[in-house]
Amino acid sequence: MAPFSSAPVWLEKALAWIDTNTVAMGSEDVPLAEAAGRILARPVTALAALPPFDRAAGHGLAVRARDTIGASLYNLLNFALAAPGEVLPEAGVMPIEAGDRLPQGADAILPLDHASPDPKAGRCEIVEPAILGNLIEHAGSHAPAGAALLLAGRRLRAVDIGLMAVADHATLPVIRRPLLRLLIACPPSIPDADGPLLRALIARDGGVMTEIRRVERKRGKLRAALGLSGADIILVAGGTGEGADDVAAEALAAAGELAFHGLALEPGRSAGMGRLAAGPLVFLLPGAPVACLWGYELLAGRAVRRMAGGNGALPFLKATLRLRRKIVSSIGMTEICPLRVKDGEASPIASFAEAGLVSAAAANGFALVPAGSEGFAEGAMIEAYLYEAP
Amino acid sequence: MAPFSSAPVWLEKALAWIDTNTVAMGSEDVPLAEAAGRILARPVTALAALPPFDRAAGHGLAVRARDTIGASLYNLLNFALAAPGEVLPEAGVMPIEAGDRLPQGADAILPLDHASPDPKAGRCEIVEPAILGNLIEHAGSHAPAGAALLLAGRRLRAVDIGLMAVADHATLPVIRRPLLRLLIACPPSIPDADGPLLRALIARDGGVMTEIRRVERKRGKLRAALGLSGADIILVAGGTGEGADDVAAEALAAAGELAFHGLALEPGRSAGMGRLAAGPLVFLLPGAPVACLWGYELLAGRAVRRMAGGNGALPFLKATLRLRRKIVSSIGMTEICPLRVKDGEASPIASFAEAGLVSAAAANGFALVPAGSEGFAEGAMIEAYLYEAP
Repeated sequence: MAPFSSAPVWLEKALAWIDTNTVAMGSEDVPLAEAAGRILARPVTALAALPPFDRAAGHGLAVRARDTIGASLYNLLNFALAAPGEVLPEAGVMPIEAGDRLPQGADAILPLDHASPDPKAGRCEIVEPAILGNLIEHAGSHAPAGAALLLAGRRLRAVDIGLMAVADHATLPVIRRPLLRLLIACPPSIPDADGPLLRALIARDGGVMTEIRRVERKRGKLRAALGLSGADIILVAGGTGEGADDVAAEALAAAGELAFHGLALEPGRSAGMGRLAAGPLVFLLPGAPVACLWGYELLAGRAVRRMAGGNGALPFLKATLRLRRKIVSSIGMTEICPLRVKDGEASPIASFAEAGLVSAAAANGFALVPAGSEGFAEGAMIEAYLYEAP
Repeated sequence: MAPFSSAPVWLEKALAWIDTNTVAMGSEDVPLAEAAGRILARPVTALAALPPFDRAAGHGLAVRARDTIGASLYNLLNFALAAPGEVLPEAGVMPIEAGDRLPQGADAILPLDHASPDPKAGRCEIVEPAILGNLIEHAGSHAPAGAALLLAGRRLRAVDIGLMAVADHATLPVIRRPLLRLLIACPPSIPDADGPLLRALIARDGGVMTEIRRVERKRGKLRAALGLSGADIILVAGGTGEGADDVAAEALAAAGELAFHGLALEPGRSAGMGRLAAGPLVFLLPGAPVACLWGYELLAGRAVRRMAGGNGALPFLKATLRLRRKIVSSIGMTEICPLRVKDGEASPIASFAEAGLVSAAAANGFALVPAGSEGFAEGAMIEAYLYEAP
């Protein structure tokens, strides 16, 4: 039997321990095509001016604006129509297309509806004067060389990928994904739901589950499995309660440091945490799927999210909502209450104790009731987390 | 030269055409490990009751509650301590762990702190009566067999994956991802930024870019490339403007139907759309990256999102914000204005015309100014889209 080592640990204390023991991973360079959603490890600057040269913002004729002064329907000006090239000849105009480099000597682009080019004759009549600088994107007007384009810590969006392609970055320095191993120490008679659940949660938070391994609920076997290398975080699911073969905490204490075991958290009270001498953090998660879920979300997930480059906060929207029915909670435990949110109001639904993951999937939000609170009255305004945008 | 076929098409008309011409893809079964983030094609029901049998919700002793009536510190009741098994013997108690099946005959679980088991003697003293049903999760209490667990159209969350594992579903029926091909019809001198940009946008929206191919800006070449099979949607980037070799619209008209060319949309006015006789939708997107972005977000992306199983709406949060500086916009065009949002207020930043994708990356939100509006005054409350939660 492995009773919890002491009185249950307050959630706040556990979170502080996690924050003290986690830093963002180092960086790695990834190709642009794999960078969306990753977190930038360093700022990215413009290697060259954007655009790199003066260029056409639209189709038309490259001209010298001063040559066109006085043109009108009553004073057609006639120019030589040059072939596209690098230099605009004296007294000439040159067709140009959007994105083309402005030929040397040109300082304006005249829209085509102000001109009548005659390619056969190699001449062009102009009926309006060109405005200096018209339809020209000047070199560096989007960003000068060396300008910061993206800041460190940014979660890369699709548009950032496009900008980086424009700015000629083939790879980007991003925070490495923390690697996790999962040891399943649940009785072998129970089909594993924690593995699929945790794999999806870890991917959502920017980590990678590299291995899921069943381990016999024996202290020595579990200790040996903890000692295998190759992870930044190790999760143990099951074996953390007060039953006869709940040996995860003992195994962790033997393999390194057991910082806490037994949290003032419901679901999740049999969770624990610590670290191996070799470095990896270890989280002990309850085996029951819904308790495993919340042990992950509040504890292990915080570590994953911080090591993946974020601030560790729960990855959900927050909203202040009116409570349609009261929530009753025990003093001394942070309790998580599943909510059904609709039209800006929240209703508690069957608790996790009553309906397990069915409640978690039926909820579209949840509230944390602090350890010092007996709950919330009907009509109270509460802070809730939402799984989806309203 | 390929001038737009007619007056610019209102955005609303283009959106209606897209909605008429798109339905969600069919379904495919994917393993649980690949289902997170996908959209469920059919409802999923419980194959069996959850839990499938009465089981222990915690550690303790399985007992018959009526046998324990009268137990107290002053009236210790003494029972035979049975080994774990399927049937609780008469006048016996049996150790049980969380998740174990309740032995036949038992109807309560007595917490261990109300009992003193003596395994050597095979006896157990009890100091409190057990409460009928205590610590028992009854078969079907989470969900009866046949109950709907997840509804069709749901975007699968990590917790859903866990629930499906609990409910013994190894695969899930999800909406197939639409497949897209991209034809780059930009001048070969310009490095392609539209490909990386669109690939990331399409992945975000639930589609898959299967091919990016450069095509010469010749009507026949583009028409032939459109005709290659194997996509649900074809995008053409570039060749949609009014320049001499802007032949994308003509190529589409020759290969199938050109529904619209020229939108009352800025950036994005040279966008177009239609479909091939063989079925695939075709979107013509401007080649300039920032115009390509908005042509995708508002038009092609809507089709991708609808075919991927969503409703097509822009995949951003919406908020009503106070405008810190006025926005000026032209009548007759839906204009997209990049915003910097902070503390519940929005400020317009350098326009897309001025700074291209640099503006798009610098913005954390944007507003759509309707075609009939000249803009918004300083201090006005506007509807904005946000790239990230506040």
